[in-house]
Amino acid sequence: MALIVQKYGGTSVGSTERIRNVARRIARFHRQGDQLVVVVSAMSGETNRLLALAKELCEAPDPRELDVVAATGEQVTIGLLAIALQAMGLKARSYTGAQVRILTDSAHTKARILEIDDAAMRRDLAAGTIVIVAGFQGVDAEGNITTLGRGGSDTSGVALAAALAADECQIYTDVDGVYTTDPRIVPEARRLDRITFEEMLEMASLGSKVLQIRSVEFAGKYKVKLRVLSSFEDPDVTSPGTLITFEEQEDMEQAIISGIAFQRDEAKITLMGVEDRPGIAAAILGSIAAANIDVDMIVQNIGASGHTDFSFTVNRNELARTLDVLKGENGKSFRAREIVGDARIAKVSLVGIGMRSHVGIASRMFKALADENINIQMISTSEIKISVIIDEKYLELAVRVLHRSFELEKAQGELV
Amino acid sequence: MALIVQKYGGTSVGSTERIRNVARRIARFHRQGDQLVVVVSAMSGETNRLLALAKELCEAPDPRELDVVAATGEQVTIGLLAIALQAMGLKARSYTGAQVRILTDSAHTKARILEIDDAAMRRDLAAGTIVIVAGFQGVDAEGNITTLGRGGSDTSGVALAAALAADECQIYTDVDGVYTTDPRIVPEARRLDRITFEEMLEMASLGSKVLQIRSVEFAGKYKVKLRVLSSFEDPDVTSPGTLITFEEQEDMEQAIISGIAFQRDEAKITLMGVEDRPGIAAAILGSIAAANIDVDMIVQNIGASGHTDFSFTVNRNELARTLDVLKGENGKSFRAREIVGDARIAKVSLVGIGMRSHVGIASRMFKALADENINIQMISTSEIKISVIIDEKYLELAVRVLHRSFELEKAQGELV
Repeated sequence: MALIVQKYGGTSVGSTERIRNVARRIARFHRQGDQLVVVVSAMSGETNRLLALAKELCEAPDPRELDVVAATGEQVTIGLLAIALQAMGLKARSYTGAQVRILTDSAHTKARILEIDDAAMRRDLAAGTIVIVAGFQGVDAEGNITTLGRGGSDTSGVALAAALAADECQIYTDVDGVYTTDPRIVPEARRLDRITFEEMLEMASLGSKVLQIRSVEFAGKYKVKLRVLSSFEDPDVTSPGTLITFEEQEDMEQAIISGIAFQRDEAKITLMGVEDRPGIAAAILGSIAAANIDVDMIVQNIGASGHTDFSFTVNRNELARTLDVLKGENGKSFRAREIVGDARIAKVSLVGIGMRSHVGIASRMFKALADENINIQMISTSEIKISVIIDEKYLELAVRVLHRSFELEKAQGELV
Repeated sequence: MALIVQKYGGTSVGSTERIRNVARRIARFHRQGDQLVVVVSAMSGETNRLLALAKELCEAPDPRELDVVAATGEQVTIGLLAIALQAMGLKARSYTGAQVRILTDSAHTKARILEIDDAAMRRDLAAGTIVIVAGFQGVDAEGNITTLGRGGSDTSGVALAAALAADECQIYTDVDGVYTTDPRIVPEARRLDRITFEEMLEMASLGSKVLQIRSVEFAGKYKVKLRVLSSFEDPDVTSPGTLITFEEQEDMEQAIISGIAFQRDEAKITLMGVEDRPGIAAAILGSIAAANIDVDMIVQNIGASGHTDFSFTVNRNELARTLDVLKGENGKSFRAREIVGDARIAKVSLVGIGMRSHVGIASRMFKALADENINIQMISTSEIKISVIIDEKYLELAVRVLHRSFELEKAQGELV
């Protein structure tokens, strides 16, 4: 008998038909003797509908009231799922975030969980009752309804699993696990049976979008065993999904590369001919940070004759604003001969924990790209990741070439 | 400066455009210096949508979970109205039933209010903040979300007015007050400036539908000054609506008849040739009560030769079930020669507190109907009401004839 926390996202509960499927899946685990705490999102489209109503009344609605409105989405789902389970003859009981109680700080629309009271859930579980909890929401110390921000239901699931010391936290989504890369681009992309926490972090932040980054960080911090599964498969069948692990396993023939992530929503900015003196990077990025613009990759080339070129990437939506900020600041804290922006770029990243102990991965990557005449505009590396910025039009080609070059279609461990 | 509780129903907040109009109206009272507690229903259609989702999953959903789902309707509206008021530069704060806290018993879907904590509301009002409260809902002692049942938002408004000892409870609806009868049937029907609590009770229970009966009873118990107004008039204009009073005013030229109510959703059942002996009515109605069917009018004629005819009315939806129950029971606790049902009937009632001190009202009513050849099938009287059952096809004619006969189109007090 295991204590399992399951989290179902908006598309998994997007209609009463799908809610009934979710109930069937839960019932199967219940019949196996597992204790279940189920976290659900709002039915797909519902949160957007609610936020749109608020926006019709005010361009920038008060966050406290926005949370009051938005939190209803999950509240509807918990009631409906409890009803669906009861219709199958099972005992089920729903809880809002405030009812559980999931105590958060008061940062409305992006609150952080401070504490979870497990008393009511433990009592229900001991009585054979399936516990259903509204994701994405909590309550602050003054009793105000809070939300954890977009995708916060994953975090709710992981936090509940941590609070209950659950055996596993299963995140059900519309894909059946984490893949070596996007199967829409590389048909041979393979589902990974397991992936390390660090790799998952890189995959998620690079746009794999299977899990919210914050929930993965949270799982890592509390050593929650996290598994990504599909809610769209036959509810009477168990598929293994992808397990996210937090320790490298000694007996594992560790793959060098786990997957290839990519992102096409970045833009590159280059400041040409800036002075090559200490503090210049801080001056440039300081003006960007002051405007609340997030920077991803940063590259500075070694300059000649006291001048250098300085490049970085931002979210593509921020390109125009970033250029405005820089041009306004140019001549004050820094001086650039020219400032150019390029939105037609893409980032491709090799991710793999095994990379740490294997040399030559970078050169193999660059050669594979060069063989296809794909020019690399920027490079950034970390312990378990190598990212390159290339012309956007080569994105699919680059991903396919790298997937083949590192033989990712083959099962893990086969590659030496 | 007055403390006013305003309640807006579902059609009044049925769109963001209408919510903005409600906010404009509230703002006007606020500018006058009034302190405001505003109770709102779910946006029109929303409660039905939510209940339909639950019904798709289970024919008879668990009431606790149904309340969890249904309560979200009002929660959305409180947040949106607060946002609309804030967009106008006013201070506003929303509260769910649980947040206020409106403590109820645990009778889910038809809970009764036990206690209201006014601390948070008083604090807000003192700070010049407009308080917005979700109608229709509360919380039980264990923290479960409860609802007061259909139309419960009126009751919420009155209960809050009582708890706060408000100067007035204004119920905004889609009509601008209580009329002498339905203006769709009698175009000359006149809005009443005031109506007594007892008359209103009779008007409401007879289908005038302006206010929920329970809320009127509640207002009477706690002497809450209740006013019915329209939310569809220009929000910048004050219309007097209809005031519901609890004392007869001495200086008032009291009208004999306040209005004519009617109802077409009843059915008549007659048991012919039952024994005329003590206990027979109890035996018949006992079987009906045991089946949980509500009975409205009851008439027993004086019989001849030890037998009598016994008639009563039930809700039209219950006719078939009532006949089944009676036929099943016939020959056991009572014996009827024949049991017949008639769904094509209507009830028409004269209502007026002045009726008590004026003889001849009944005969004048019966004569007016007889003059039009309208046959009276059943008669029932109370201190302030005379009801007759007639063939449904004469309903409109009867209402018009009586309205004219008692000169209800003229202002109150003119009729002697």
